[in-house]
Amino acid sequence: MSAPVRLILAFLSSAAIVLAVAPFFIPMLRRLKYGQVEREEGPHAHSAKEGTPSMGGLMFIIAIVASTLIFTKYEIGLWYSIPALVLTVGFGLVGFLDDFIKAHKKRNLGLRAYQKIIAQVILSGAAAVFAYKYIGSEIRFAIGGASVDLGWVYIPLVMFMLIAIVNATNLTDGLDGLASGVTLIYSLAMGVIFIYLAGAFQNAFAPAPKLVAESDGMLTMAVFAFAVAGGLLGFLSKNSYPAKVFMGDTGSMALGGAICAMVLYSRHLFLFLLMGCCIVASAVSVVLQVGSFKLRHGKRIFKMAPLHHHFELLGYPETKVVSGYMIVTAIACAIGLMLFI
Amino acid sequence: MSAPVRLILAFLSSAAIVLAVAPFFIPMLRRLKYGQVEREEGPHAHSAKEGTPSMGGLMFIIAIVASTLIFTKYEIGLWYSIPALVLTVGFGLVGFLDDFIKAHKKRNLGLRAYQKIIAQVILSGAAAVFAYKYIGSEIRFAIGGASVDLGWVYIPLVMFMLIAIVNATNLTDGLDGLASGVTLIYSLAMGVIFIYLAGAFQNAFAPAPKLVAESDGMLTMAVFAFAVAGGLLGFLSKNSYPAKVFMGDTGSMALGGAICAMVLYSRHLFLFLLMGCCIVASAVSVVLQVGSFKLRHGKRIFKMAPLHHHFELLGYPETKVVSGYMIVTAIACAIGLMLFI
Repeated sequence: MSAPVRLILAFLSSAAIVLAVAPFFIPMLRRLKYGQVEREEGPHAHSAKEGTPSMGGLMFIIAIVASTLIFTKYEIGLWYSIPALVLTVGFGLVGFLDDFIKAHKKRNLGLRAYQKIIAQVILSGAAAVFAYKYIGSEIRFAIGGASVDLGWVYIPLVMFMLIAIVNATNLTDGLDGLASGVTLIYSLAMGVIFIYLAGAFQNAFAPAPKLVAESDGMLTMAVFAFAVAGGLLGFLSKNSYPAKVFMGDTGSMALGGAICAMVLYSRHLFLFLLMGCCIVASAVSVVLQVGSFKLRHGKRIFKMAPLHHHFELLGYPETKVVSGYMIVTAIACAIGLMLFI
Repeated sequence: MSAPVRLILAFLSSAAIVLAVAPFFIPMLRRLKYGQVEREEGPHAHSAKEGTPSMGGLMFIIAIVASTLIFTKYEIGLWYSIPALVLTVGFGLVGFLDDFIKAHKKRNLGLRAYQKIIAQVILSGAAAVFAYKYIGSEIRFAIGGASVDLGWVYIPLVMFMLIAIVNATNLTDGLDGLASGVTLIYSLAMGVIFIYLAGAFQNAFAPAPKLVAESDGMLTMAVFAFAVAGGLLGFLSKNSYPAKVFMGDTGSMALGGAICAMVLYSRHLFLFLLMGCCIVASAVSVVLQVGSFKLRHGKRIFKMAPLHHHFELLGYPETKVVSGYMIVTAIACAIGLMLFI
């Protein structure tokens, strides 16, 4: 199978799986009463969303796992697709437990904070050690082609970044189609980056010292990225405004895990600050808001954090905030691609 | 400038131009009272849209022309970008006259039907003769790599296709972000096809008998396609639901012309039936509806034509119809790319 066909089939099959299971899965979620319990601190207008089934992220997790495994370039590709899927499913599982407990206890809080932190530290620690050993502690910069070998500092840095990315993605999932739309565009752009990397390493005949210099591996990461994009495309048919299903913490944490896998294997850790700027903005706005509230005796910077709620309270319609985030992500990803290539 | 940078800059500069002029242009259109007069036969709910400024398409026409000319690969590329822009601006001008007369006479009908037909026949005739002479009368098929030389039959076929595509694109422009979103995705996919064609002809050292086998020309068509996509991305910031501006016939006919240019230079005339299936559906649904009404004594097939109004009257929210069309277009374009590559 030629490389482009492999990539397009991964995209299409992932979309097809979500589109195929959605008509059965969403009513099932509704019957099982896994409806969304809106955060009490969300904007008032959102109370209309109570009752929309959550945990819809399970659909694209299934689609991403199946499509990636089918179109992984054997055998070296398994060293890329399996860790990427473990990160996706692992963080998805943390989110699932959270959603599940919420649904059964009918309260907004699921896992306790310390339980979430322990789970995230374990997962990100394992990922960081794996990456240190098999991808290497060298990180690259898009501008000027610079690279720095971080040594053991790589491990805590990666742990911090992974935990930050996963929670930022989780925070971004607050409007219909927001996290799914933004991550769809990001994944397409990362897919192109991995295609480029696969080409760059094509003529490296000598066995590479580290996994990342393998053409088949980079191609497999492109397969993974397009499977994520395809799954989200299918999911958006039910998740775009007005949403019939939410991804839940299950979905948003799984997407966070998927993004982490793409960031790690691309080695361009800081490129995420640009290409994922909308996700970064969610986390930064919360940090600033809480920091300002505590340090400035109750003064707030934003009307509400994360940032998308701030725009809503400024009077922008939900659909406009979502399309704005998608447009900004598309522009940021185009700039990122340009710097990269 | 490397080819990928050229393409990404065309996309970004086109988006930037629209984003930069929109804050001045839209209030100006409103002051000049170029507001939309809704078609009398549209769904009742649309009467709320009366007063939204139209002719917003002028913004992306300017952006497409500027970005394409800046990033055309000289000199051979001018043989591609100039005709493509002439088609875009030419059909845009027909639409502009229509919009202008509508706005000044404050009635829904602009140009008379026979005036529109004459203008379209002249433009498509000129394009068909140019294409026959410089691109050649051979058309290609994605499946099996087959090709057929149509001889002089090429000219009437191309004229028919161009007129059909332009009017179909015009019909598709009926919901916030519909024509812009669908054409954005289509253009990105065509951009990838032209990149592929540029690569395929890269090693052809002998002077090609026809323009189409020129690597620089195909690269320039990719520049054009990405400029169209970028302009539409910028435009969607104001045109996505709830729209602050409409593209008008100016915009939708210009987009039709742009699509025609991409179809002609790609030589894959029939691939449009797949990749542009949502635009095709608009035209086919109108033909079926009118045919059924006339032949079956007043019986209708759809609740309303074009098809997107049918879905609206079935109860789907406007935003859902638009996202559905974009998702279907993305899937169709992915299949088209797969067949092509």
